[in-house]
Amino acid sequence: MAAATQGVRLRPHAKTHRSADVALAQIALGAVGVCCQTVGEAEALVAGGVPDVLVTNEVVSPGKLARLCGLARVARVGVLVDHPAAVDDLGRAARAAGAEVGVLVEIDVGQNRCGAIPGEPAAMLAERVVATEGLRFDGLQAYHGAAQHRRTPQERSQAIEAAALSVRRTQAALATRGLVASVIGGAGTGTFALEAASGLWTELQPGSYVFMDADYAANTWAPESVRFDQALHLVATVISAPTPERAVLDAGLKAVATDSGVPLVAGRDGWQVDRLSDEHATCRTPDQARPGERVHLIPGHIDPTVNLHDWLVVVEAGRVVALWPVTARGASA
Amino acid sequence: MAAATQGVRLRPHAKTHRSADVALAQIALGAVGVCCQTVGEAEALVAGGVPDVLVTNEVVSPGKLARLCGLARVARVGVLVDHPAAVDDLGRAARAAGAEVGVLVEIDVGQNRCGAIPGEPAAMLAERVVATEGLRFDGLQAYHGAAQHRRTPQERSQAIEAAALSVRRTQAALATRGLVASVIGGAGTGTFALEAASGLWTELQPGSYVFMDADYAANTWAPESVRFDQALHLVATVISAPTPERAVLDAGLKAVATDSGVPLVAGRDGWQVDRLSDEHATCRTPDQARPGERVHLIPGHIDPTVNLHDWLVVVEAGRVVALWPVTARGASA
Repeated sequence: MAAATQGVRLRPHAKTHRSADVALAQIALGAVGVCCQTVGEAEALVAGGVPDVLVTNEVVSPGKLARLCGLARVARVGVLVDHPAAVDDLGRAARAAGAEVGVLVEIDVGQNRCGAIPGEPAAMLAERVVATEGLRFDGLQAYHGAAQHRRTPQERSQAIEAAALSVRRTQAALATRGLVASVIGGAGTGTFALEAASGLWTELQPGSYVFMDADYAANTWAPESVRFDQALHLVATVISAPTPERAVLDAGLKAVATDSGVPLVAGRDGWQVDRLSDEHATCRTPDQARPGERVHLIPGHIDPTVNLHDWLVVVEAGRVVALWPVTARGASA
Repeated sequence: MAAATQGVRLRPHAKTHRSADVALAQIALGAVGVCCQTVGEAEALVAGGVPDVLVTNEVVSPGKLARLCGLARVARVGVLVDHPAAVDDLGRAARAAGAEVGVLVEIDVGQNRCGAIPGEPAAMLAERVVATEGLRFDGLQAYHGAAQHRRTPQERSQAIEAAALSVRRTQAALATRGLVASVIGGAGTGTFALEAASGLWTELQPGSYVFMDADYAANTWAPESVRFDQALHLVATVISAPTPERAVLDAGLKAVATDSGVPLVAGRDGWQVDRLSDEHATCRTPDQARPGERVHLIPGHIDPTVNLHDWLVVVEAGRVVALWPVTARGASA
């Protein structure tokens, strides 16, 4: 496994699959645990037998903090903070639950989303975590989501080099306080080889690699990087083919996410999805399609697509060998 | 109610809400039944007590045909056809189930999706339906989905006038065969006043009006047309506000559909959603937001947004008065 040979740990992101079966398979293959993006995902996966979940997100509502800390009584649980008040609230919730919660201070390494300013501000937050009963300071979260989908290896490499500077600056600020980040988390499917090679990151968090999607396939990959095959297809059926140039499939906006573009048609030369409506994909076709025929689609963005379905159908050598529930489907709260 | 005063029936589209509670409320207020877009929706709503469902879609797979016709043993069920083979398959399934299924021949009135060619080809299909044991020829489906979102009343009016020509041409071709379409179905939230006023359509099928969304709100409405208020908000929480100009909400691509654009922020001057990721909406804000504060969002497209959630929370005068399950959530098969 790529992670082990580089001396880093793998903590795959379960927001891609939301499946306890997939998470447990990843752990059986060497992952130290999984990442979740919501408290609901963490609850569903822990209930499904996953022993170690890191919520790679800020959690602020009292109700969600209570749920998160309750979960920490039965599993190893971590979460991110990027604000002093959040540290205090989390500490109170952890003490109320009688649980210990692991904390990574999230730093903004170029994504411009959540995250404290790297360096002194982040180190001050870490100090606050250390001083808060019920919390365990584990380290830093340094994930550059926007870098994952930059198309060329050069662009991705530059982004991760810049992120590394932010990590180093924060490590230095921690060191002046006598603190060490034992975990530096981050990396996704588009860049994880870069973080692994950096010598800085200790836990890689890729998610999409497990299924892949059309958007990641559109990246240009460097020769030395890992390129994953598409492992998930959405199977649709032609329900109407009114002209030789048009076929309408029974898979629309409620079956496939379109934030990263319409799905690709797999293995059918000249087929192209033109547009989607709630329950239809209208395709251009090179010749007359037949109502009833099956068509395989490759979703543009895998994570929100899987979330639209209740089951993953596992096929080996053309046979269905398992049905895996999407354990945390809809668990966005 | 607008429909009754025009002498037409209302059969609202349940694909918007997928909720048996909402469907039953619509029927209690005078709707003759509801439309569904999938067999799964129809099953869930019939199980929830809805007595009359029209699947406004082509259904071709043997498994789905068997389910649809099984449903017709316990409820009044209708469906569309646009292909001779589909008529034969549907008839076989109806006879196998010992059920009668109502059929509308779908004609393409300008949407360029499903539907037979208006006029002779559609009338030939109708004749085939009439000749098929187990099927009841109810009439025509003449829905112009693309017209709903054309921005000006003039554009929508022109589209429905053209659709009316297709209906008339098909009625004439039916008449030469001694057939009458007792149902002419169609119309959505953007155009239903036009179909109602035409004297042609007999059943209006609007869906979005019940909740509304940002895309429909962007239409320009004629003075005489009905404009509905936004009745559904997605409640999100600020989880991070790293700068005075940026707030990050806990509602992303898995909580709100983005095919018709990012959601609008309700009642907060100067707030704008910049981009969405799986579990985040990153907003531009006019001043420093506070982690923990609630923000109301208006989805761009309501149907695929409701489908992402398990519950509708009903609020009257600031109090939660009911929780309605999204009965057919995920039922896209």
